[in-house]
Amino acid sequence: MNSTINQMINRGSIRKFSTKHVENETLETILKATVQSPSYANTQAYSIIVVEDEKKRELLYNMTTGTSGKGMTFIQKAPIFLLFVMDFNKVNKVMKKENLDMHIHESMEALLVGAVDVGILLEATTVAAEALGLGSVVVGAVRRDTKSIIEAFNLPKYTYPICGLALGYPDTGIKITPRLPLDATVYHDSYDDNAFDKHIEVYNKYMEELYNSRGADTSWTKLMASYFQKPIGKEQIDTYKNQGFDI
Amino acid sequence: MNSTINQMINRGSIRKFSTKHVENETLETILKATVQSPSYANTQAYSIIVVEDEKKRELLYNMTTGTSGKGMTFIQKAPIFLLFVMDFNKVNKVMKKENLDMHIHESMEALLVGAVDVGILLEATTVAAEALGLGSVVVGAVRRDTKSIIEAFNLPKYTYPICGLALGYPDTGIKITPRLPLDATVYHDSYDDNAFDKHIEVYNKYMEELYNSRGADTSWTKLMASYFQKPIGKEQIDTYKNQGFDI
Repeated sequence: MNSTINQMINRGSIRKFSTKHVENETLETILKATVQSPSYANTQAYSIIVVEDEKKRELLYNMTTGTSGKGMTFIQKAPIFLLFVMDFNKVNKVMKKENLDMHIHESMEALLVGAVDVGILLEATTVAAEALGLGSVVVGAVRRDTKSIIEAFNLPKYTYPICGLALGYPDTGIKITPRLPLDATVYHDSYDDNAFDKHIEVYNKYMEELYNSRGADTSWTKLMASYFQKPIGKEQIDTYKNQGFDI
Repeated sequence: MNSTINQMINRGSIRKFSTKHVENETLETILKATVQSPSYANTQAYSIIVVEDEKKRELLYNMTTGTSGKGMTFIQKAPIFLLFVMDFNKVNKVMKKENLDMHIHESMEALLVGAVDVGILLEATTVAAEALGLGSVVVGAVRRDTKSIIEAFNLPKYTYPICGLALGYPDTGIKITPRLPLDATVYHDSYDDNAFDKHIEVYNKYMEELYNSRGADTSWTKLMASYFQKPIGKEQIDTYKNQGFDI
């Protein structure tokens, strides 16, 4: 099998990293591969912040502790932690240079271009890092307090933090989390509202056994329900608008 | 150099495809690699629609013609065209199974989870397809008429179309579009509002020469200005809200 495909099919998140140093050259190679990935009309409306400062790592970690007081320790311990930011401050500079006004920040389209392009970058960084033997885990939880991030990282108007990504050499083996069968996700010419229903029981049973074997008494739907039962991110729109965006 | 890194660093979009058929098995391999990429808490809140129907291809093509009447012909001609949809209909089904209410659709967080995860999928599909010798191009222009897409593809409540992706064997060589130097994109511990300013002139000059060599009398900033000078996507929020979302 093709080595890239093989790597992708056997991919799993790594949440425990060895203390092995990641060379600057390695990170540079990863990021050069990353930025060559597709970007909306080659706009490159994003920034990546390498978070090294311990206090800033702690700020991000504190967002993940929730009520249990136990957070994602890898945010503090990972050799590399990257913060991905959607960035129309750059587009605004381009427009000013051409003596024109920017408009995209006035509609939902900015959020779509910005978030999709950050998603593309996240996956590119993940694939490139894993090709070089590193492990990775994406962190959406940095969105729990975007206001503090904006302050701490001096994010200007027309920018908004989207995701974090921890990188390092793995200290554990990869645990692959199987996905729903393709039939539940991939449709032909029309949305099939029954496809997911057909597969949920079998997938849930399979995942329950997997979680049990890993020492967790849960199922996929129970786990999802625990994540999604509470309101989330209600304050984000205010922070987003304070950054100069409308929707 | 590592073959995956080599492929990513030398990546460029392909907009002209050969008539060579893409085997079902090839697409299946690509999509199996794709869905194994990271997804927010393994939620898999997405659907991928393989668009084969000629009328549906035409509908998508017509969104790209603009005022010139000349659209992205590859939307009709590419052997494979995929439509990527953010999908909280599935999360809602999971919550119902657990007798709980979904809340994420009430805030901006749904759009962030949905769009980022589609971005991750887009890049995963791109990398996997290119590893197997195919070319690709992402199409954001399908957002010009999300309302018609929702009708044509029967997209239910709590779903929203995000991007298209054309795949096929290349009929042309890859033209690599160089990106801004990493120093303009990657910062350390804090946003550097001067970094972009420092590089824009050199990059713009370089890109102007590149565009000229390709027969186009433009520069990067001129091209960006032509894309971004008009309001875009103002109607999307209404369509999005009609799908059951709030922000």
